Amino acid sequence: MKVIEILEEAAKRVHKNVKHLAGTKESGTDHGVGAGGDISRRIDIVAEKTVLDYLREINFECTVFGEECGMVELSPNPKGFVIMDAIDGSTNAVRGLPFYCCSLAFTPEDRLGSVTDGVVMDLHNGDLYSASKGKGAYMNGKKIQVHKEKPVYFVVGVDISGISSDALPRLAPILAASNHVRHFGAVALELAIFARGLVDVFVDLRRKLRITDIAAGYLIALEAGGYVVDENYMPLDSNLSYDKRISFIAAANKETLAETMRKLGLPNNA
Amino acid sequence: MKVIEILEEAAKRVHKNVKHLAGTKESGTDHGVGAGGDISRRIDIVAEKTVLDYLREINFECTVFGEECGMVELSPNPKGFVIMDAIDGSTNAVRGLPFYCCSLAFTPEDRLGSVTDGVVMDLHNGDLYSASKGKGAYMNGKKIQVHKEKPVYFVVGVDISGISSDALPRLAPILAASNHVRHFGAVALELAIFARGLVDVFVDLRRKLRITDIAAGYLIALEAGGYVVDENYMPLDSNLSYDKRISFIAAANKETLAETMRKLGLPNNA
Repeated sequence: MKVIEILEEAAKRVHKNVKHLAGTKESGTDHGVGAGGDISRRIDIVAEKTVLDYLREINFECTVFGEECGMVELSPNPKGFVIMDAIDGSTNAVRGLPFYCCSLAFTPEDRLGSVTDGVVMDLHNGDLYSASKGKGAYMNGKKIQVHKEKPVYFVVGVDISGISSDALPRLAPILAASNHVRHFGAVALELAIFARGLVDVFVDLRRKLRITDIAAGYLIALEAGGYVVDENYMPLDSNLSYDKRISFIAAANKETLAETMRKLGLPNNA
Repeated sequence: MKVIEILEEAAKRVHKNVKHLAGTKESGTDHGVGAGGDISRRIDIVAEKTVLDYLREINFECTVFGEECGMVELSPNPKGFVIMDAIDGSTNAVRGLPFYCCSLAFTPEDRLGSVTDGVVMDLHNGDLYSASKGKGAYMNGKKIQVHKEKPVYFVVGVDISGISSDALPRLAPILAASNHVRHFGAVALELAIFARGLVDVFVDLRRKLRITDIAAGYLIALEAGGYVVDENYMPLDSNLSYDKRISFIAAANKETLAETMRKLGLPNNA
């Protein structure tokens, strides 16, 4: 079984196991603070357990780097790391807002930049996004790509949850310039729909994102032909640490990326 | 046939007629600038024609105040006005983002404050929200209400599309304070899901919204027990004019409204 198939099967099991929980009171029960620093809700715990149980069941020799569970060694001879945010967009899921997903990635080494496989499953409608390095990005088995044409209406995704009063004004030029700003509330899935061409630009300058939020969506966006860089116009990278916080800019083509970076007052070529 | 039933039937026909268009190139064809000032797309035109055809078919004696078509007198003896944004969230619809709706309201007089009936139809999933003055708000025939309990995770909706650099800093305190900011991109439907309790607060301080965007959602939010005021803590009102631009703050209870207004530096009691 290929690694990508393992991640896909794990995500499908999460979909099956959390379906009945979305929008219920039960889903939101507090389970204490997880490794990533947020409160774990029941739906997070059920989803993580589903992935962990499955990886154990098939004896997948890896270490899990999980949003809630922390580092879990499933084997003394791990082939690599499964980077897991079993529910990205937990608040949406708990409240019944139809935008949340399961994000799973695999890397043979202890680095975000070494991710070889990524899966994002839309847990509301069951759409499955996946990518393996060098092999393109797929939704439900069909190849996808970012929106390469210049769109008539530019759709700009942003993450502004808890944004600091320092960071907010930096976004002013792109917010003022777009009549179609969006924030759905689950970055992994926002990157997946960017990869599919529904959104042209996505910006998160909060320096709050974790590796678990972005590992799978980052690969899918790149494999779909997107450009994704940090505030220094560099590829995203870091060792797998819970302290690491990420900002990034994603754009559907090079011109849009340069233009967006320029508006944000950031370096606009490598 | 009651007025609310007429609006519901019209919205259902829109749902049926635009289903195949969402996410297609055809849906986005440019049809020139509409009465409200935006470019009309093919999907807007098909949806408006559906409503107008139906109202003519049943000889509903009214004047239509439409987002694209402008004022259309369907009778020399109108009983009132149908305020129509046949597609709110057209860009989402055209791009295939699953959040757009049909918004229809009725008022016997030429005023937003006199609206007696409102319908918002989620054109992606077919959920039908409706309210008649004094009779509560409903989704698919079941009574709905705003989220009265104090939520563990506060979800704050905002409209920041094309927000000016003057207005943006005013939002800073509420963005910094909420880890769950959302912007789905169709205010009528955002008010409907607020009415249903999925979102706790919604703020639009851009002074860009039109009466057609808000007429139905406003009544549904009020009838679901929500508080909706303008920047002066006053009820929303205006005659039916295409020049009128609206800002508003919606909150699920009085305390949250006062707290939000305070953070925004606005008057926090009447």
